[in-house]
Amino acid sequence: MIKIKGVNLGGWLVLEKWMSPHLFDGVPSDDEYYLAQDLPTAVYETRIKMHRAEFITEADFITIANRGFNTVRIPVPYFIFGDRPPFVGCIQELDNAFAWAEAYGLKILIDLHTVPGSQNGFDNGGISGVCTWAQQPQEVDFALSVLQRLAKRYGNRSGLLGIEVLNEPATATMFQSMSTRYKAREPELAEKSKPITLDFLYDFYLRAYNRLREDLPVDKAIYFHDGFEFDAWQDFFATNSFENVVLDTHQYLMMAELSGTPQTVANYVRVMQDFGKKIAAVAQEVPVVTGEFSLFNSYTAGIDTKGGVNPTQEKMVGTVNRRDDAQLVKAYQELWRAQVNAWNNGSGYFFWTYKLNIDTINEPAWYGWDSWSASRALDQHWIDPQDL
Amino acid sequence: MIKIKGVNLGGWLVLEKWMSPHLFDGVPSDDEYYLAQDLPTAVYETRIKMHRAEFITEADFITIANRGFNTVRIPVPYFIFGDRPPFVGCIQELDNAFAWAEAYGLKILIDLHTVPGSQNGFDNGGISGVCTWAQQPQEVDFALSVLQRLAKRYGNRSGLLGIEVLNEPATATMFQSMSTRYKAREPELAEKSKPITLDFLYDFYLRAYNRLREDLPVDKAIYFHDGFEFDAWQDFFATNSFENVVLDTHQYLMMAELSGTPQTVANYVRVMQDFGKKIAAVAQEVPVVTGEFSLFNSYTAGIDTKGGVNPTQEKMVGTVNRRDDAQLVKAYQELWRAQVNAWNNGSGYFFWTYKLNIDTINEPAWYGWDSWSASRALDQHWIDPQDL
Repeated sequence: MIKIKGVNLGGWLVLEKWMSPHLFDGVPSDDEYYLAQDLPTAVYETRIKMHRAEFITEADFITIANRGFNTVRIPVPYFIFGDRPPFVGCIQELDNAFAWAEAYGLKILIDLHTVPGSQNGFDNGGISGVCTWAQQPQEVDFALSVLQRLAKRYGNRSGLLGIEVLNEPATATMFQSMSTRYKAREPELAEKSKPITLDFLYDFYLRAYNRLREDLPVDKAIYFHDGFEFDAWQDFFATNSFENVVLDTHQYLMMAELSGTPQTVANYVRVMQDFGKKIAAVAQEVPVVTGEFSLFNSYTAGIDTKGGVNPTQEKMVGTVNRRDDAQLVKAYQELWRAQVNAWNNGSGYFFWTYKLNIDTINEPAWYGWDSWSASRALDQHWIDPQDL
Repeated sequence: MIKIKGVNLGGWLVLEKWMSPHLFDGVPSDDEYYLAQDLPTAVYETRIKMHRAEFITEADFITIANRGFNTVRIPVPYFIFGDRPPFVGCIQELDNAFAWAEAYGLKILIDLHTVPGSQNGFDNGGISGVCTWAQQPQEVDFALSVLQRLAKRYGNRSGLLGIEVLNEPATATMFQSMSTRYKAREPELAEKSKPITLDFLYDFYLRAYNRLREDLPVDKAIYFHDGFEFDAWQDFFATNSFENVVLDTHQYLMMAELSGTPQTVANYVRVMQDFGKKIAAVAQEVPVVTGEFSLFNSYTAGIDTKGGVNPTQEKMVGTVNRRDDAQLVKAYQELWRAQVNAWNNGSGYFFWTYKLNIDTINEPAWYGWDSWSASRALDQHWIDPQDL
């Protein structure tokens, strides 16, 4: 099996304010749910359509393939088919992406990144501080219908690697952490927020698998995110007779920091090596892909970012200890290698993310945040292309 | 003197429909003058602002420097300072670009690409089929005031290479060719259109030089476009005592086609070699830079494009003879080398252009047009990086 060397096309069809702050100019919204309310309809739709037309284009697919990646993971929103006003559908953009991928030799993993009411309460779940999807059976069914429509539309496309059923459902521990970080703008919308249970997930994933396989040939993979509980899945895969499924885990250095890892390269490397051993063990049962990771960390950012709190959320207090170029190259290359070595104990990786629209020069608060971009990291020699 | 290895940031602050067709979605406008009329104000402003925020960013400056270019030429509109409603100013974007250029080791040539009423009647002059600027003394003065304000604002910036006084004024021959190709949407606006005379240009350039030098130190260059009459300038430079001026000439393969050059690589190369000799001669009197050229031609486009008529203007009739990848690499690399060798008989070049937002896969009419983009050409190996 060829290892996946992938990048996420984050921030394209699913917005994240920190990745494209100008989309949120002049309004207090922190997520697309409120962006659609805070802007006049015509302006909201124009911003969205222009962003989609400019942020990722044919030229990016050429560059990504040319850099040596073989796959892209494309986060898509639940309203991709345009049936959930006021949000604007984006199936045409995904159609275009398939044609580009097939022309330039890339594969696509479609990732259902949001669901109505949200599965995690993150800004990238569509509505910050709210996590009510799993309590709304009709919205659970709606998510299944989106998956089914995606499978029908792309199931036989040579450019399709597979479909990921649901991005980052927040089970108990992550739900706790989310709740302190993301506050609901309208608390009444969050009244029924609850962590997603593993039992719910086992059931939903099984339903999603069966629904998808009606239209998805077995050479197309079905991806399940681990719900931030990497150790909770061996029984699930042992007791169900799935064909061509993958367990997706997301591992960020900033999550290691939040768990107490001291902010040095050596310690980050140790954590990733340890995680690589876990991957090797789980991969005996089910293929494992690390669907998100990054180079971002507090050491190279030069300040304790408290687990990646970004400049659109909070102004960092304290002096930023800027490293020189040689230190950055050394640190980032070492972190890249340690991480990719770990992920390759499984079936490969998707870096988060390909591209960012932040300005580290005119807005110095973004110093260090450019390490979230594979494109910038390659241009800055923070990744040695031979290590892909 | 270090040779200029430059790219134009075309289509960013000055729109050209063919370079970003989605900006003109749903309206009949062919240029920014009518785009501002055809769209509701809020939608027009949102499209423009989003385009400016996304098309060229900090990351592009990193990539351009990393690819080996040392300079960018930035076309700017006459309304850059925001004093010509309904058009939206863009001085903040140019400020940002200076900070990026200085951070990543690039120089900027500011190019005044449009003037009110237009100096050429091209779509990229702001209003197609109209060429009345030179007949309006108050608008000639306005152009001088824009140049002066640019000199005051950026004259002492280390990132400034220089200022180009006026892009592509159409003297008699080019005016004739423009008139058959670009029709005025409101013929009454074009009633007073006339070619720009060389005598007008000599006078305007002298006035512009004197005005700019009030604020522009002599280490910053002043560029004059040749008005498509490369042979008409030796007396002008011999009889005026200028400091640090450059003659800018634009040479396109499609212009050679229009003059009767047969559509083969060998013939294109011969034309460029001949032009290189002319550059060597004129460069005895004044430094010469080729401010625009491209790889685009009818041979690699696989059809006679009648001098570069593009798919937003006219549907090509006939079979497109697609070349295979190896043929394209060979033809483009040869054309690049022949052209750059010619330009280096002078002081260097700016390729037109860095980036294009067309889709050659989902809209096959754009086949071949991707050769206008340096970024794509490098990714496709149509330019050997060693030949920059």
